[in-house]
Amino acid sequence: MKIVESIPELRKELSKLAHPIGFVPTMGYLHEGHLSLVRKAREGNPSVVVSIFANPTQFAPEEDLENYPRDIKRDLELLTTEGADVVWIPTVEVMYPEGYQTWVEVESLSTMLEGSFRPTHFRGVTTVVAKLFNAVGPDRAYFGQKDAQQAVVIQQMVRDLNYPIEIVVCSIIREDDGLAMSSRNTYLNENERVAARCLSRGLFQARDAFLSGERRAETLTQIVSDEVKAEELADLQYVSCADPETLVELDGEVKSCLISMAVYIGKTRLIDNIILGVS
Amino acid sequence: MKIVESIPELRKELSKLAHPIGFVPTMGYLHEGHLSLVRKAREGNPSVVVSIFANPTQFAPEEDLENYPRDIKRDLELLTTEGADVVWIPTVEVMYPEGYQTWVEVESLSTMLEGSFRPTHFRGVTTVVAKLFNAVGPDRAYFGQKDAQQAVVIQQMVRDLNYPIEIVVCSIIREDDGLAMSSRNTYLNENERVAARCLSRGLFQARDAFLSGERRAETLTQIVSDEVKAEELADLQYVSCADPETLVELDGEVKSCLISMAVYIGKTRLIDNIILGVS
Repeated sequence: MKIVESIPELRKELSKLAHPIGFVPTMGYLHEGHLSLVRKAREGNPSVVVSIFANPTQFAPEEDLENYPRDIKRDLELLTTEGADVVWIPTVEVMYPEGYQTWVEVESLSTMLEGSFRPTHFRGVTTVVAKLFNAVGPDRAYFGQKDAQQAVVIQQMVRDLNYPIEIVVCSIIREDDGLAMSSRNTYLNENERVAARCLSRGLFQARDAFLSGERRAETLTQIVSDEVKAEELADLQYVSCADPETLVELDGEVKSCLISMAVYIGKTRLIDNIILGVS
Repeated sequence: MKIVESIPELRKELSKLAHPIGFVPTMGYLHEGHLSLVRKAREGNPSVVVSIFANPTQFAPEEDLENYPRDIKRDLELLTTEGADVVWIPTVEVMYPEGYQTWVEVESLSTMLEGSFRPTHFRGVTTVVAKLFNAVGPDRAYFGQKDAQQAVVIQQMVRDLNYPIEIVVCSIIREDDGLAMSSRNTYLNENERVAARCLSRGLFQARDAFLSGERRAETLTQIVSDEVKAEELADLQYVSCADPETLVELDGEVKSCLISMAVYIGKTRLIDNIILGVS
């Protein structure tokens, strides 16, 4: 496994790889969710490239960039085990050198859901993903369904900007008690960790209601909201029932939907989601 | 020479081409300026791809998109003669399908010079060039020095977004009387065509002054400005003496500079420029 930092080093290693190249962009502090993406890439492609970069432009000033968990040594051990071919770990100076001034923005989709609470977030995501795509030139790129809106925004960017890249969105990986895996779960203390179960509990209850025939958007979100509000340590920021492709908020009877939510557990902001009615 | 419209057709033809691929993006109505780019691409690469697309997003509503000159038949004859391998002529629907919403913007450089008079122009340029680059995947791309700021903005975009593409900027091609070749020259009537000589005449006088030792930015622009103002049919919009790389306006003594200008000749807006002090 080759570990590179600069773009010239990266290009040199890429030139030795057979296509198709499967690419997994990450912010590091890898968990089973990330590793499931790497395995999927490994299964489907002769070459696998992983990037580790906690991208500052997708964090707002008041967000947790400074404290974002890091453990590069452990990440590299995990990626060695999974059989990645190249790991690219650029510095902030490599990605955003002095005078940097170019932005990629998916306008409408970036303003919805998470975007309404984190107005500069997706501009940072799409910009860094465009940069990673241009540098790596992958044939396939793997993203987690955990960041549901990110997956939709990136698929739109790829379509709009004519990237010859297949986007593969992989299922959420959960802890045994249902909590969606996230690097940010490490912020939770013991009580908060228990309280954090309310997100998936709410979503699973909405799923069960849907499977039992409940189709009203308002009822489905109410089920999630009730579950979160019953948890003392939880503070619900939003719960949404939206079209899974356009992210437009739904009301009344729905055929399929993305139920997504953000919840503060103490100071830690967690997100989770479930897609209903799509096979 | 293969002529394609859709992206799947384009991809199919691209897969047959040997690398490096030289790419010349154009808006059609080709003149010797464009053909000089195609020849340069032809000399330097086993494969040459040309695109013809009058990009609506780089025209403001009051600008001349509707009347922009077109002659695809003649363009294709010229490109056959020059030996292009693939000509891509996408429709507006191919490039901007319903729901299109992604933009690439080089922030600071896009607001200067031309950008201060055409505030949405460079966002349209960088977006379409990113789309063309992603679709064609060239190794080298050729642009004319005639659009000096465009060349600087695109070089910044390529650097910032990590495009593995070499940008080749080619000299301005001029008519015998000095007028820089432009598809828009076709708008000029006989008297206007004569009047239009004032742009290059002013620039050449500034160059001669520079070669004779004149180094004051204000004097160099004054020379250009005086020459244009002496021409009754000409209306000077701006003349600038700027740093050739940062486009920052210069004053006092200069070592090197980009002198650029926009002039209305009747209703036709013409631009021209010259770089001084750079070998």
